[in-house]
Amino acid sequence: MLALLQNIRVVLVNTSHPGNIGGAARAMKNMGLSQLVLVDPMDFPSGDAVARASGATDILDAAQVVGTLEEALVGCSLVFGTSARERRIPWPLLDPRECAAAVCEQVLQGSEVALVFGREYAGLTNEELQRCQFHVHIPTDPDFSSLNLAAAVQVLAYEVRMAWLVAQNKPTKIAKLEATAIQSSQPVTADELESFYAHLEQALIEIDFLDPAKPRHLMSRLRRLYGRSAISKLEMNILRGILTETVKAARGEHQGRGKTDV
Amino acid sequence: MLALLQNIRVVLVNTSHPGNIGGAARAMKNMGLSQLVLVDPMDFPSGDAVARASGATDILDAAQVVGTLEEALVGCSLVFGTSARERRIPWPLLDPRECAAAVCEQVLQGSEVALVFGREYAGLTNEELQRCQFHVHIPTDPDFSSLNLAAAVQVLAYEVRMAWLVAQNKPTKIAKLEATAIQSSQPVTADELESFYAHLEQALIEIDFLDPAKPRHLMSRLRRLYGRSAISKLEMNILRGILTETVKAARGEHQGRGKTDV
Repeated sequence: MLALLQNIRVVLVNTSHPGNIGGAARAMKNMGLSQLVLVDPMDFPSGDAVARASGATDILDAAQVVGTLEEALVGCSLVFGTSARERRIPWPLLDPRECAAAVCEQVLQGSEVALVFGREYAGLTNEELQRCQFHVHIPTDPDFSSLNLAAAVQVLAYEVRMAWLVAQNKPTKIAKLEATAIQSSQPVTADELESFYAHLEQALIEIDFLDPAKPRHLMSRLRRLYGRSAISKLEMNILRGILTETVKAARGEHQGRGKTDV
Repeated sequence: MLALLQNIRVVLVNTSHPGNIGGAARAMKNMGLSQLVLVDPMDFPSGDAVARASGATDILDAAQVVGTLEEALVGCSLVFGTSARERRIPWPLLDPRECAAAVCEQVLQGSEVALVFGREYAGLTNEELQRCQFHVHIPTDPDFSSLNLAAAVQVLAYEVRMAWLVAQNKPTKIAKLEATAIQSSQPVTADELESFYAHLEQALIEIDFLDPAKPRHLMSRLRRLYGRSAISKLEMNILRGILTETVKAARGEHQGRGKTDV
């Protein structure tokens, strides 16, 4: 069971203060999490990180440092992004408890998930948030809403551990989850979903539905729709096949039939 | 209702590092708590506390400094002591969620309660723990169980806020936002969904992806995907628009741009 917690990736984007990286590592280790990914950290490795980690140096040593959020999310089937603010486009929004329940459900199915935390002062950009299927908001006092980064990691890691402990004590719920897992086939990963969106955008441009000069909210609305649908690999193959034929049709390159062998 | 959170006292006993006092103040203010009591702190006031408080200086300024735990608890009807270890003497032991429920129940009755946190390295003494009616244990990994002091305050303050939001009967701000989002994005009806499937099938035939003579399971798979996505009316308009343009493209009837006004 413990192995399942290792399928949960904590991703810190563009962190300014190495002390917060150390604090996050300590919070993770306290709650049984181990997989830390740092996207373009400002100052790492660092003595401050080691000091605040207070013994969780194994997590710092094993931390993966990457250049972009995309790299950090490769192989993840579900991505949760922490968000402090209300956004104009409504997005599936969870509180930490709901997030933890969804995380546990996924890892019990053998999938990998990511919890993404933004910069200390600016959080995640809209573009980064659109790479997340779900947004998580920690319900702070609206008059003083900016949590310390390590504190935010602590709250989510704590909720994940609580959900995981509950799942361990309720075999019936696990059995139910496993049955669901068998029913639905393997989910696509975040990188596969990104390739799909790129393909979709290209096709929409080719059929003159999307004007790249005036994209409006079209792609983010489509991301929201497909992002919440838990698309399986088989379904993704179908959608990609449709896009391929759509592009051919738009270019007048119809190839005749024979594509329905799914 | 907010006034009730002011009846919750956070008591830090004999804290070594002033930075932790600042971190605790920030965590409290994030969650709407305000009453901080310091029992014999090693170093306070301190610039380190102000730095880590990150704007929660009003809580530091108003903090009461006392010499003994007894003084800190005057007027409290219920006292919860955090404990990292199992004790030889069995004591009523709560997890943070149970503690938060009990705290809220008390303050809703107009009582004052205290959450007591011990020293960074040694926690609370047995004598101090015996002054608490309940012990609270944060369920850490047994192999790495020592939480940072401010992180422990963060977890309990967060649980208190969650319980308080539930007690208010309008759970999280998120739930409210979600309700708004759902209201403003009315779901499609079954008949609208059927029209969409008919349109989708027609488009797939036009782009030569679907062979009507050999349809296989294609449409049922797509029905399963879109059927579980709870498509809104706005999203349906987008999907129908895409299909219309796809059919035009397949027929060589590109109309130029101007369809992205969504």
